[in-house]
Amino acid sequence: MLRLGIVGASGYGGGELLRLLGRHPKARVSVAISGTYAGRPISDAWQGQNKQSELRFSAPDDGTQLRECDFVFLAMDNGKAMQQAPALLEAGIKIVDLSADFRLKDLALYPEWYKLTHSAPEWSRKAVYGLPELFRNEIRGAQLVGYPGCYPTAALLSLAPLLKNGLILPESIIVDGASGVSGAGRSKFSLDFHYPELNESFSAYKIAGSHRHTPEIEQTITTLTGKSAKISFTPHLVPMSRGILTTCYANLSKEVSTQELLAVFQNEYSSQPFVVICKEGSLPATKHTLGSNRCHIGLEVDKRTGRVVVIAAIDNLVKGMAGQAIQNMNLMCGFEESAGLDDIGGLWP
Amino acid sequence: MLRLGIVGASGYGGGELLRLLGRHPKARVSVAISGTYAGRPISDAWQGQNKQSELRFSAPDDGTQLRECDFVFLAMDNGKAMQQAPALLEAGIKIVDLSADFRLKDLALYPEWYKLTHSAPEWSRKAVYGLPELFRNEIRGAQLVGYPGCYPTAALLSLAPLLKNGLILPESIIVDGASGVSGAGRSKFSLDFHYPELNESFSAYKIAGSHRHTPEIEQTITTLTGKSAKISFTPHLVPMSRGILTTCYANLSKEVSTQELLAVFQNEYSSQPFVVICKEGSLPATKHTLGSNRCHIGLEVDKRTGRVVVIAAIDNLVKGMAGQAIQNMNLMCGFEESAGLDDIGGLWP
Amino acid sequence: MLRLGIVGASGYGGGELLRLLGRHPKARVSVAISGTYAGRPISDAWQGQNKQSELRFSAPDDGTQLRECDFVFLAMDNGKAMQQAPALLEAGIKIVDLSADFRLKDLALYPEWYKLTHSAPEWSRKAVYGLPELFRNEIRGAQLVGYPGCYPTAALLSLAPLLKNGLILPESIIVDGASGVSGAGRSKFSLDFHYPELNESFSAYKIAGSHRHTPEIEQTITTLTGKSAKISFTPHLVPMSRGILTTCYANLSKEVSTQELLAVFQNEYSSQPFVVICKEGSLPATKHTLGSNRCHIGLEVDKRTGRVVVIAAIDNLVKGMAGQAIQNMNLMCGFEESAGLDDIGGLWP
Amino acid sequence: MLRLGIVGASGYGGGELLRLLGRHPKARVSVAISGTYAGRPISDAWQGQNKQSELRFSAPDDGTQLRECDFVFLAMDNGKAMQQAPALLEAGIKIVDLSADFRLKDLALYPEWYKLTHSAPEWSRKAVYGLPELFRNEIRGAQLVGYPGCYPTAALLSLAPLLKNGLILPESIIVDGASGVSGAGRSKFSLDFHYPELNESFSAYKIAGSHRHTPEIEQTITTLTGKSAKISFTPHLVPMSRGILTTCYANLSKEVSTQELLAVFQNEYSSQPFVVICKEGSLPATKHTLGSNRCHIGLEVDKRTGRVVVIAAIDNLVKGMAGQAIQNMNLMCGFEESAGLDDIGGLWP
Repeated sequence: MLRLGIVGASGYGGGELLRLLGRHPKARVSVAISGTYAGRPISDAWQGQNKQSELRFSAPDDGTQLRECDFVFLAMDNGKAMQQAPALLEAGIKIVDLSADFRLKDLALYPEWYKLTHSAPEWSRKAVYGLPELFRNEIRGAQLVGYPGCYPTAALLSLAPLLKNGLILPESIIVDGASGVSGAGRSKFSLDFHYPELNESFSAYKIAGSHRHTPEIEQTITTLTGKSAKISFTPHLVPMSRGILTTCYANLSKEVSTQELLAVFQNEYSSQPFVVICKEGSLPATKHTLGSNRCHIGLEVDKRTGRVVVIAAIDNLVKGMAGQAIQNMNLMCGFEESAGLDDIGGLWP
Repeated sequence: MLRLGIVGASGYGGGELLRLLGRHPKARVSVAISGTYAGRPISDAWQGQNKQSELRFSAPDDGTQLRECDFVFLAMDNGKAMQQAPALLEAGIKIVDLSADFRLKDLALYPEWYKLTHSAPEWSRKAVYGLPELFRNEIRGAQLVGYPGCYPTAALLSLAPLLKNGLILPESIIVDGASGVSGAGRSKFSLDFHYPELNESFSAYKIAGSHRHTPEIEQTITTLTGKSAKISFTPHLVPMSRGILTTCYANLSKEVSTQELLAVFQNEYSSQPFVVICKEGSLPATKHTLGSNRCHIGLEVDKRTGRVVVIAAIDNLVKGMAGQAIQNMNLMCGFEESAGLDDIGGLWP
Repeated sequence: MLRLGIVGASGYGGGELLRLLGRHPKARVSVAISGTYAGRPISDAWQGQNKQSELRFSAPDDGTQLRECDFVFLAMDNGKAMQQAPALLEAGIKIVDLSADFRLKDLALYPEWYKLTHSAPEWSRKAVYGLPELFRNEIRGAQLVGYPGCYPTAALLSLAPLLKNGLILPESIIVDGASGVSGAGRSKFSLDFHYPELNESFSAYKIAGSHRHTPEIEQTITTLTGKSAKISFTPHLVPMSRGILTTCYANLSKEVSTQELLAVFQNEYSSQPFVVICKEGSLPATKHTLGSNRCHIGLEVDKRTGRVVVIAAIDNLVKGMAGQAIQNMNLMCGFEESAGLDDIGGLWP
Repeated sequence: MLRLGIVGASGYGGGELLRLLGRHPKARVSVAISGTYAGRPISDAWQGQNKQSELRFSAPDDGTQLRECDFVFLAMDNGKAMQQAPALLEAGIKIVDLSADFRLKDLALYPEWYKLTHSAPEWSRKAVYGLPELFRNEIRGAQLVGYPGCYPTAALLSLAPLLKNGLILPESIIVDGASGVSGAGRSKFSLDFHYPELNESFSAYKIAGSHRHTPEIEQTITTLTGKSAKISFTPHLVPMSRGILTTCYANLSKEVSTQELLAVFQNEYSSQPFVVICKEGSLPATKHTLGSNRCHIGLEVDKRTGRVVVIAAIDNLVKGMAGQAIQNMNLMCGFEESAGLDDIGGLWP
């Protein structure tokens, strides 16, 4: 069994890793680090995992515990993984980092978007962007994967087949996204996430391209098309706990029908275990993906305007976080890609 | 006191009319028609209005009751007001119709979008589109007002200052909207609006320009600019009861700053009692408008893409329905525009 | 116009006072104190009250501002009003205190339940318990009213007609209550009130008589019956923002029918402007009272067990807080009891 | 592999059976009957199970399909299983019925509580009440299990250790329950379950012992104590999709501490795979059990009143329905009791 470490195990990403890894056939969590819950049983932070684990949280240390692991998931605040990862990597450990620290290739973007200077530029160059549906081969050979953000995962799976086939004009892309509140994490308490302020309310935040997921989407568009492109991205906050839905708009580069585009998507994703293309006339809802690692995609051509609208739904904590992290781990370790992930979800209602 | 009639008084629009008109200084509901609740007290349908009214619902009849009224609100399914309105209008009664029957000027749009032929084309020509912030003078002289849809109210208030000042390219407009479930009405029960299916879920519906509010937005863009334009509109369903938020995107026709655009909006709406422009850096949320007749608008220029993003929030049942209907009535009857509407809302949380 | 002061004006009680007092015919808020928002406009804390007020929050001071007021609402944490109130009272100002500081008559209960010694015992003796339906005459002559908790308001209105008529055995009383999250206030952020933890969850807290509203209910039972009684009270947390529902159980002291008990309630509350007795077979829901100062009560006798079950619903921030505070003010100042409160609420859905 | 049939496979119970049985090591669904979705793929009704199953719904027939099965789950409206079950049973098939048709031993209760005469009285006598924690041995030998209601499951697990040890007075029992809306099923659409009416509302229904789960709780109390008892049960509706919480009150028959009672519970349930006793000071929340087959129980003695308060949480669709049905099947078929159920749940938030 692969010995796993999780840093940040009492956050939402960490909790979901614990839930999912509890059933993985070839890996087992041996170290779960949480400053807040150090020394306490897993079920103190995750009451829903009562009776599922004998494990206790351990306190952060100088890395001694993690060096006993074969594979480490880093789920910390931005700016911390770039400090902790190098020593582990040099000790031969494989890492999936769930923060933004190893997502961007152009290091000049870190001061601009994250107000920090990258402290591990050489590892940043080696890191692979962990979106398996687009970069499976690179991930297979990687020691370090920089995990995609939740919005970019849904948006890029929506746009990739169109971009790769030259079907849309990249500069026309608008990504309108909406997320459940768990996307804000589990440790930052404020009026912004206080229950009575949010229920029965819907709002936008960080509009006009000010959200940090913007450069990440743009970087991958460039990778897929060879050209740089500026896109518009607007996130919204939904009064629910889980789920992300993105609505992508783009001008078509030629006349094409809904059926033809659906065929392109079906073809592009036919061998992907976690992408579901909705049949014509059907659209995804976040609840369709609750608890699962799937991304559901629906689309329609608007002949009146010459645009295509693509809707994608994921569970932001699974395909948008812990599930996809495990999918990356499976690839990096030569396991079956869907190991531990193939019969989760389907929880309804 | 103006004697008022409401047809469809047990629907959400009707209920909100009853709630708001209960405090109007110059008008009183004397006829409240509901097939479902005929003969029963108002509080049987609206328990929250207990002790507020002695009124009982009456059954639909041949129009005898309504002809005793000075003013009638029609809140029925599409296709019915065009049948009932003419006789009342010919009897000299003023009408605000809350359905789509008198919104569209181009009658060819009715078969296309509503699958019906307009049965009162001459009245349709005389009807005024009831968005007071844009068409106040026309409304003042109108006998018949066709009420704007809820999404178009928010979207057009977001776009009008930009369109009137030639600041955006109409063909680039994308309207992304999200509504609470009350927008679906109170009488159509199905799995689509069954509680367990909707809570913790977010989805899009009627995408790619297939929602009936699309031609209504386009019609008004043409009125404001003199040119026809096709736009993209995508509605979403939010797990909440009330509220609409629209996120409008458009390419700027010239370089302009966020501050400059905010000044344009403030100037345009300075004398409007129900439009609030958020200061720079602030954005509306639907809860800001809960129970009130206000529309809150925030915006930001995205210099990277040359687009502007405008966010507007309304209460779909007030500014998007009953409140705006009363605002129209006030104008049509020479009352103060905000009569009965000026200290509602503010309910928090 | 009565000049009003509010201390704690950016909390949920304070915000609701501002909302409701904005329409009071004989009183106007002239001082709104908030440490957090000092110097900023009301709409910075209460975006839903935009355009409704020119007022700005002021910082806490040595009492100079409040001494310019005729009447003060104290909405602070427990233990603070007992310190600030005496100086204001001695200056002749009338006060409604929304904390627990002047609710309990037996001062020994403060160390036991609130872990503090009462610092103004003489004023505590003079304070009147502000439940107008039970203590209207005492309130009329009071200078200081200690405001009932939200749960006790609903529970005591449910139990009083039964207790006053000797229809139930006090020792058998069980009060099972459930509250929306706004009951926890607006300033204490923690995992307990973090949106993703609460939505789609229902739980009990402070069970087995450990909630501080217990002695307050017992004190009033003693006032009504002349005998002391210990009751069971269990609060629950509901995934919603507003509203309280209490379900009271008690053993009947004699055989009596549902109809007979309903007649007792209707008789008892016939002249009360804010109590609604549901007809037989109907039950209250919190939404029936949303935004209003009403308490809806329904009941049924369980012949099988010899118990009566009484259900009461209120809006915890209105009848359970700001609305009832204004109702008290109206009585204390000789205004009509329902001034400013008679056409609020009814918001649906 | 055991061949399974599900009748009512597009309802919430059926959907949850499909989700959970998809991962069972020794059983596979071969017939899934749904009148509504006959002929269509499972994912048409259960979009969250996309890619998980090749199965299609089949139409109800004369029983031919089901007679090919080894084991059948009946998830139909009350009154239907008693008609369909006998023929299947006589063909040697084992059945868990999820309706109320085989829950009550005293057949006179059917006309009284369900307004129907039992059509299979002899099978009713043979049926075992399917609460494994209390009746495991009887279930092991059963051919027909009548499934407990969701509320009784939580309430009886809360009360059994107290009743079996003579620690409470049965006549004093009050069961206060609260359920998410999925408890109302998936096919009965009405204003009662229409989203906008329910969100932000909490209410009681079928109070004063009028809910049909009452006789079922009483029957089991009699089984456990040998004496008949009438109890009070009040259900409430919570604005959430899943989950049940029961709050049980009872007078203690002797003085006993919280710690002593917790020890009784821990002892009673020590070998039960699906019961979790919360440590002193901790209480369950429905979210702790989301998606899992566990029942979490917490309790506290109220020394002031001589009562105990026991709180239990379950997922109404798993331990309260499909999960417990599978737990029964496992026992009836000699599988490990937790087969297919041991690593589900834990979904957070």
